[in-house]
Amino acid sequence: MTLVGGDRWRGEFPVARIGQYRYTVEGWIDRFATWRKAMFKRIESAQDVRVECLIGAELIEEAAARATEEDALQLRDFANILHDDSDREGRNRAVLGDDLAALVQRYPDRRFATRYEKELPLVVDRERAGFSTWYELFPRSCGTLRDCEARLPYVAAMGFDVLYLPPIHPIGHTFRKGKNNEVSAADDDVGSPWAIGSDVGGHTSIHPKLGTLDDFQRLMAKATEHGIEIALDLAFQCSPDHPYVRQHPEWFRMRPDGTIQYAENPPKKYQDIFPLDFESPQWRELWEELKRVVLFWIDQGVRIFRVDNPHTKAFPFWEWMIGEVKSEYPDVLFLAEAFTRPAVMYRLAKLGFSQSYTYFTWRNGKDELTTYFRELTETGVREYFRANLWPNTPDILPEFLQAAGRAAFITRLILAATLMPNYGIYGPAFELCENTPREPGSEEYLNSEKYEIRHWDTDSSASLKHLISRINRIRRENPALQNAGNLRFHETDNPEVICYSKATTDLTDIVIVICNLDPYHTQRGWLKLDLASIGLDANRAFQAHDLLGEGRYPWHGPRNYFELVPESLPAHIMKVRKWVRTERDFDYYL
Amino acid sequence: MTLVGGDRWRGEFPVARIGQYRYTVEGWIDRFATWRKAMFKRIESAQDVRVECLIGAELIEEAAARATEEDALQLRDFANILHDDSDREGRNRAVLGDDLAALVQRYPDRRFATRYEKELPLVVDRERAGFSTWYELFPRSCGTLRDCEARLPYVAAMGFDVLYLPPIHPIGHTFRKGKNNEVSAADDDVGSPWAIGSDVGGHTSIHPKLGTLDDFQRLMAKATEHGIEIALDLAFQCSPDHPYVRQHPEWFRMRPDGTIQYAENPPKKYQDIFPLDFESPQWRELWEELKRVVLFWIDQGVRIFRVDNPHTKAFPFWEWMIGEVKSEYPDVLFLAEAFTRPAVMYRLAKLGFSQSYTYFTWRNGKDELTTYFRELTETGVREYFRANLWPNTPDILPEFLQAAGRAAFITRLILAATLMPNYGIYGPAFELCENTPREPGSEEYLNSEKYEIRHWDTDSSASLKHLISRINRIRRENPALQNAGNLRFHETDNPEVICYSKATTDLTDIVIVICNLDPYHTQRGWLKLDLASIGLDANRAFQAHDLLGEGRYPWHGPRNYFELVPESLPAHIMKVRKWVRTERDFDYYL
Repeated sequence: MTLVGGDRWRGEFPVARIGQYRYTVEGWIDRFATWRKAMFKRIESAQDVRVECLIGAELIEEAAARATEEDALQLRDFANILHDDSDREGRNRAVLGDDLAALVQRYPDRRFATRYEKELPLVVDRERAGFSTWYELFPRSCGTLRDCEARLPYVAAMGFDVLYLPPIHPIGHTFRKGKNNEVSAADDDVGSPWAIGSDVGGHTSIHPKLGTLDDFQRLMAKATEHGIEIALDLAFQCSPDHPYVRQHPEWFRMRPDGTIQYAENPPKKYQDIFPLDFESPQWRELWEELKRVVLFWIDQGVRIFRVDNPHTKAFPFWEWMIGEVKSEYPDVLFLAEAFTRPAVMYRLAKLGFSQSYTYFTWRNGKDELTTYFRELTETGVREYFRANLWPNTPDILPEFLQAAGRAAFITRLILAATLMPNYGIYGPAFELCENTPREPGSEEYLNSEKYEIRHWDTDSSASLKHLISRINRIRRENPALQNAGNLRFHETDNPEVICYSKATTDLTDIVIVICNLDPYHTQRGWLKLDLASIGLDANRAFQAHDLLGEGRYPWHGPRNYFELVPESLPAHIMKVRKWVRTERDFDYYL
Repeated sequence: MTLVGGDRWRGEFPVARIGQYRYTVEGWIDRFATWRKAMFKRIESAQDVRVECLIGAELIEEAAARATEEDALQLRDFANILHDDSDREGRNRAVLGDDLAALVQRYPDRRFATRYEKELPLVVDRERAGFSTWYELFPRSCGTLRDCEARLPYVAAMGFDVLYLPPIHPIGHTFRKGKNNEVSAADDDVGSPWAIGSDVGGHTSIHPKLGTLDDFQRLMAKATEHGIEIALDLAFQCSPDHPYVRQHPEWFRMRPDGTIQYAENPPKKYQDIFPLDFESPQWRELWEELKRVVLFWIDQGVRIFRVDNPHTKAFPFWEWMIGEVKSEYPDVLFLAEAFTRPAVMYRLAKLGFSQSYTYFTWRNGKDELTTYFRELTETGVREYFRANLWPNTPDILPEFLQAAGRAAFITRLILAATLMPNYGIYGPAFELCENTPREPGSEEYLNSEKYEIRHWDTDSSASLKHLISRINRIRRENPALQNAGNLRFHETDNPEVICYSKATTDLTDIVIVICNLDPYHTQRGWLKLDLASIGLDANRAFQAHDLLGEGRYPWHGPRNYFELVPESLPAHIMKVRKWVRTERDFDYYL
């Protein structure tokens, strides 16, 4: 513990194993330390301390009564020394010595201890919760789960370590949506994977056209060989054909006409989706069943879940379910797909979600990026909320990507990959810079993969796959980029250019990112680096090595020039190399 | 409740009676309001709402089951209207009408209510807790308690409403301190009133030289006639001669040589004072006895206590004792004399103290005054901490008063009386500008009244008593000065001149104080008033009426000139009078 000031102390403790912890704070009066502190002053001012030594001996004997047999013997030896007034110098040495103090401190008197009335929860996750690189892929666009195996090398080569699959379960037929979300589907339309459940099964079944549970097991095993974990989607809602609808109508809200309440956002109606009723009188059975679904996939080896719209389900359910699951499987991670109000997103994090989607998707300007990431990394939010940055998703083709094309995709990729240690893309739409909206003003993709099968030309020469590989390798090779709390923004004199750094605590790895946010124009100007914040000496030159473009720039002091051309590379990812040689490093300088 | 933003709501509730409250916050889903909100949209878009009306009727019938018989009848009538599809217009009117909504809202469904886990304490005190004017007086310097009666008109004429008496109990003889805190007393030395207890009694006795309990009762009655409350001192410590020492040695800490532990601040020893041991094995009996002392004086009619050094006693004791006393006598007030670290002072306020001494005593500069009073009035501190400002006490003659004499006394008086609604002075030392320290660098008075009887020339022409009367009358006549949270600082271009305003919520009383903090030089310059913060129109002239000097200044806009001469009056207390006549107010202007 160290004193912060104003009666506030800061303490820390290590947590060695992943899992769920609770802690609190207790304080008590250390009479011995108070006595000892006064003894320094008394002995210094040559007071008669005979009685004071007897008081100390009493405190030591009280500690002995709380001590182990062995330590009690030692403590009583000290008490005897304090009783003995014949060898004052030896006595005073014992009083002021560290040995006695250390021994007594082991046995504090906690009778009048004050305890903070709250127990504070603490979750320790495995490393991938804090550093992960996601790729989202519609497996049916590859064909079957077997066909997906062939796509693994491609995903692994780009450097992704989590492959997230939208729901792989049977899809309903009733009110099935057609291509581009048409109200009625054609006979050959495949439907949305989020309309879960048909006569062949529900949340623990696999769509027959994708394959079998054995095929899924094979895919999991192959993925592991490539260093990839499979993440599944938990979308707790049902198509009208889901087995739950027949077997457990009590888990749904019933309308007075005897039909089941469909999803709505009045006046809009979503008749292909039945929400589950988390407050139904039979909620206990429903919650247990949903937990069983999660445990079923955990049994198949799945350890990461992306949770669809958690904010539209009961919060106590998540708190209970995640707590239950993690008490048995502390390595399981949950990513919350909640694009909603800040308080709700932060609440979900506190309920137990390991990661969350963010507003990054819509933050393109320098000020709004800076403000948002300061909130995530410099306020209390950093203690419970792990951001996972997505430049696109199957639901969101942001207007910035629609408008500015390839340069915008590169900019957003670099920002996502370097601002935070967790990020992901929905591919191959992303690397192929797919950017046509269903209609102007919409964020939906034209011919969205949500409603139809798409065939992607992953070999296209226009693909960003090589750039993605490079960026993900830079992330793996630079521990500075694997942390969230070390983000520091630096000034630039150009409002279109953002600059930030990340450094490891020991300053052995320092990365500075400079990014042109304007996809249309070359931007140039001057940085003003806060060198102290990244442990750099303002009077010593250093080398800024651009890990993207491979340029090596000799930099000196806080002010350095930049020029960024969006058509080629809109950003530098500068690795700081401190020990640039100067003339003083040459032998003949001496 | 009103929405603040970011999912935060602000609510308020009135508390009609003084006393101790606990409250918490509960939230639940209002399904009926959700349904009704959707109905507006459905009816507007001309949907078929037959089934929706049946859903609404169900919700209404559920409310009826929770309602009183009378309301249930009315609710079922509404349910019937919703069942009836023949008169659609009448039905829709009922659905969207306010009558139904108001009726249902009385019977919320709290089955899934969420409750904030903490119960928050709230203390409602009588008005004097928030607005009081204190005068401290050593009764023995008047003679007896009977003689004190003669001083009451003097105190009342100055406008004080609390007369605080240092301890009136018997004083110990053993180790009695002499004049100017000499280690040994002469035979005729009277001793410190805080060395409580002798063979004639302790904390519930009155010093024989002051008089009897009857005399005290008389003094209380006379004070009431003058609109003055007597405040007593609670100094929970004992002289070696206190009856507790013989009767209850177990309430003190014993030294190994069989003597009682005296007060110490090593290496200094205070052998005339025995602290009580709040953690002794017999603490329960001790605590009960101390509570009995408080109740004894409450029985005599005392309702205000000034508590000596509360921070050196056990916090749980104060919390328990004040809670117990106030549950029976909610009108009792406790002023904490704790000059210690901020966290401790704030903690005492949270434990139940009604008011507290502050650092005002040592804050003389503009920046330090502004910073400190912003902390007290603009942060969370204002919710639990009521400041009572003292420019001097018997223990503290601040260096500022020592150095700058009369002008400094006037400045400090005006600041204390107008910054906060609670303030006090130790007199007659204050109004007579007594400012000689025991020795240079000391804050102790020379010939301190703590150790000897002083005779004061209250009729001196140099006395500030008339100025004090005037200032206290201004406080009584201006409700703006009777509130703590309405303090606003305004800019001046002179670092020696502070400016602040106080206004009532309804803006019917607005006071602006401008004070020269430099007691040596005339200071002049320009104000820059934040007119919006006190509800003034920047385009309309107003009159600034100096309630101290009686000048009336026509002011216009935020920038106004000032000039303050410390030798006459270092401050203006400006009452804002809004409706200054202009040429447009004259008949012939039309």
